[in-house]
Amino acid sequence: MEPLETEDKLNENIAQVRDLLNKQKLVENIVHRSQSTNQELVEDLVHRQHLVELQSLLAQLHTGDIAYILEVLPLEDRIVIWDQIKTERGGDVLLEVSDSVRKNLIEALSSDDLLKALNQMDGDDLAYIADDIPPALLLIRQETLTAEDQKWLQSARAYEEDTVGYLMSNEMVVVLETDTLDIAAQKLRSLKELPIHNDTLFVVDRRGTLKGILSLQDILLNDPALPIHNIMLTDIIKFSPNDDAGEASQAFARYDLVSAPVANERGKLIGRVTVDVVMDFIREETTEDVLNMAGISGEEDLFAPILSSARNRGLWLIVNLFAVFAISRIIGLFEATLAQIVSLAVLMPIVANIGGNIGNQTAALIIRGITLGQINSENTFYLFRKELGVSALNGTVIGLVVGLFAYVFYQNLSLAVVIAVSMFLTLVVAALLGMSVPILLDKMGRDPALGSSIITTATVDSVGFFIFLGLASIFLV
Amino acid sequence: MEPLETEDKLNENIAQVRDLLNKQKLVENIVHRSQSTNQELVEDLVHRQHLVELQSLLAQLHTGDIAYILEVLPLEDRIVIWDQIKTERGGDVLLEVSDSVRKNLIEALSSDDLLKALNQMDGDDLAYIADDIPPALLLIRQETLTAEDQKWLQSARAYEEDTVGYLMSNEMVVVLETDTLDIAAQKLRSLKELPIHNDTLFVVDRRGTLKGILSLQDILLNDPALPIHNIMLTDIIKFSPNDDAGEASQAFARYDLVSAPVANERGKLIGRVTVDVVMDFIREETTEDVLNMAGISGEEDLFAPILSSARNRGLWLIVNLFAVFAISRIIGLFEATLAQIVSLAVLMPIVANIGGNIGNQTAALIIRGITLGQINSENTFYLFRKELGVSALNGTVIGLVVGLFAYVFYQNLSLAVVIAVSMFLTLVVAALLGMSVPILLDKMGRDPALGSSIITTATVDSVGFFIFLGLASIFLV
Repeated sequence: MEPLETEDKLNENIAQVRDLLNKQKLVENIVHRSQSTNQELVEDLVHRQHLVELQSLLAQLHTGDIAYILEVLPLEDRIVIWDQIKTERGGDVLLEVSDSVRKNLIEALSSDDLLKALNQMDGDDLAYIADDIPPALLLIRQETLTAEDQKWLQSARAYEEDTVGYLMSNEMVVVLETDTLDIAAQKLRSLKELPIHNDTLFVVDRRGTLKGILSLQDILLNDPALPIHNIMLTDIIKFSPNDDAGEASQAFARYDLVSAPVANERGKLIGRVTVDVVMDFIREETTEDVLNMAGISGEEDLFAPILSSARNRGLWLIVNLFAVFAISRIIGLFEATLAQIVSLAVLMPIVANIGGNIGNQTAALIIRGITLGQINSENTFYLFRKELGVSALNGTVIGLVVGLFAYVFYQNLSLAVVIAVSMFLTLVVAALLGMSVPILLDKMGRDPALGSSIITTATVDSVGFFIFLGLASIFLV
Repeated sequence: MEPLETEDKLNENIAQVRDLLNKQKLVENIVHRSQSTNQELVEDLVHRQHLVELQSLLAQLHTGDIAYILEVLPLEDRIVIWDQIKTERGGDVLLEVSDSVRKNLIEALSSDDLLKALNQMDGDDLAYIADDIPPALLLIRQETLTAEDQKWLQSARAYEEDTVGYLMSNEMVVVLETDTLDIAAQKLRSLKELPIHNDTLFVVDRRGTLKGILSLQDILLNDPALPIHNIMLTDIIKFSPNDDAGEASQAFARYDLVSAPVANERGKLIGRVTVDVVMDFIREETTEDVLNMAGISGEEDLFAPILSSARNRGLWLIVNLFAVFAISRIIGLFEATLAQIVSLAVLMPIVANIGGNIGNQTAALIIRGITLGQINSENTFYLFRKELGVSALNGTVIGLVVGLFAYVFYQNLSLAVVIAVSMFLTLVVAALLGMSVPILLDKMGRDPALGSSIITTATVDSVGFFIFLGLASIFLV
């Protein structure tokens, strides 16, 4: 039996090594943020319902990791994970997930579970997600807040979603300009917990007016006996709570900021914006353009239930339906011409398809320019002229090629000329529409990307069919 | 004459006040980063050729502001501004502008001017833009670098554009784990200039192996006599130079990082990545999706000359041409059917247009999911099932509505049923294509967004026309 025993032993050893390796892998993961492995492990445990192991794995993960894993799982799996973390980190995780996933979770959680999570949040956290919480629950939570937190929650909720006031937090270290650096250092030491991204302290006078900023480096590198106002920076970037969040995030990128003070119209320091919030804002904002262009509300959660996804895309599809019925009626005007020259039906989708794509190209350029803050009343005219030039150039080349194609298949010179000219005209109109639609939406205070692809395709199709069939009725019948 | 003199005096006073107000406005601008006013002032001075005033205004602006203003102006204006700043800040500004504007500037500048700017850069800066510089000029500049900078330039250039190695810098403060906090503070004081975003120092052993990080706060808040290894954080997020830049930027967002160390495969500290670089990367990367989907190379400069813009969009338009010719030939197969039933020509663009839009909606969702790192082999199957469900649901509703529309206008039940069924089938295929195209492109290592809108529209159009006209030939003729 000995050989067998040895083999058993060997196998046992191998199993132990494997186990150790696996444990090692876990530790490695956490340190090396190999996110995909973490995620696979979690998904595996969720599906095998190994809840004890799942809990211990989740306990080792960063809140950001848990939020990320929730993002990429369907609702039922989200709930399994939520049950494991809710008692300790429910509040933190709810803050970290994206808007759409948060809404999805809040809908699915019991009032009791949700209230548990809310109880882990302070006034600042609550203000950030208040709009998504059922008002009755928020009221219950609100009553147990400190007076200061209640006040902050109320004032912060007064700001609209796309403003600096909405992004700002009240966590910051404030010092008096007349204090010394040493007192500033003592103040830091006296705090139980320092705010995130605390690269600078904010300096105020006795009345709370923002006077400047004092970096940690300056405290560290200068004589502790010096007064703060000798050292602080006064030429600073500050925001007003009503500033546009998009513009503020551009300022963060442009001036390489980590944190910046927010002051009200009387110059009083009221809050702080940090780069982590700005980065999340940029990520959500810029990637939403892609969805909005296609006519999807930017909030759609990739793993939302079928019914809510279908509803989410429904609005623009209704717009789309009305548009195509109009297009069909425009073509219907030329039914007699189509009955006479059937080749028109074969060729007309060429005009519509290329026209739609050119319109979308121009719209995409303009939408990106608006998102990056590169388009203003000064340069709009220049851009119109330029895009017209580009489309005329491309329209000439494409018109000639399409005309040639039509001639090769139908040996009809008039038909070839009609489609070439239609192609050129449609492309110029497409470029004009691709520019005008997002700029007009933006001027109207709407999201310039919203539905632009559907609007552009529909209008360019209508115009293209009308030009092509109209010219054909005049010159070919 | 007195009244006149008084009036003169008054006017002079008004002028002075106005002048002061304007000056005040300038100062206010710089402090309050009212970017649009700065930009208007600069544009005005450029156009009026007030070069002296322009120079003094530019001298007061942050490098980030100048880079931004260059972004939103055509080339000839960019050159006027460049001439005013080149001697002192040409290098810095060249680093700050976006890739496309940098390329545009480098092409337009004289070798002499460009070399001046390059001479203002160190090895780290040069590595960042090296690919855009004419090799001969880079060689000239390289020879005057210090040996250390030359070495850095060479090793940094070895990394591909979308890796952490490409984003990393060699500017960092490194301390030994055996030193005390006091020695770390002394080291900081001894530096002439501190690196940007220097929130943490990196701790190594004698062999240069990364051991942990030490935050400025920890230096400030602890007993200076303590050794660094007692205080430093060892459970840290670090990157390898070959890590994907997109994944690293997601880690920055997920873990709220300001700076993070980069270590090679032997664990040796080789560089540092900071949040400003990551934020720029995210802004360029995510906003490029919008362009790429529409078939524009992501690098297009909004204010590039017409010819280069036309060329930039030309490649995908050629693809588009081939695609529409194929579509037209598919319709051509059914010429006989179309000649018999002209209403088919009137109705068929409905199928193509809605189908294309549904395909684009699905593609947009998937592209965004890939950009945000939310799609992996684990959840692809789930997503396919879900998107099929959404399209079947929307397809049923839309099919019925379109069928009703056809019936109202043509009083032909068979025709109504054929278009309703075609609509349903096309929408399901559109969703499948909208999912498959970006996922396949991504699996092939290509940008999932590239040309997806053109590819999706073309394939959905072909399929839609084929299904509709095919069913019509079978059941209506």
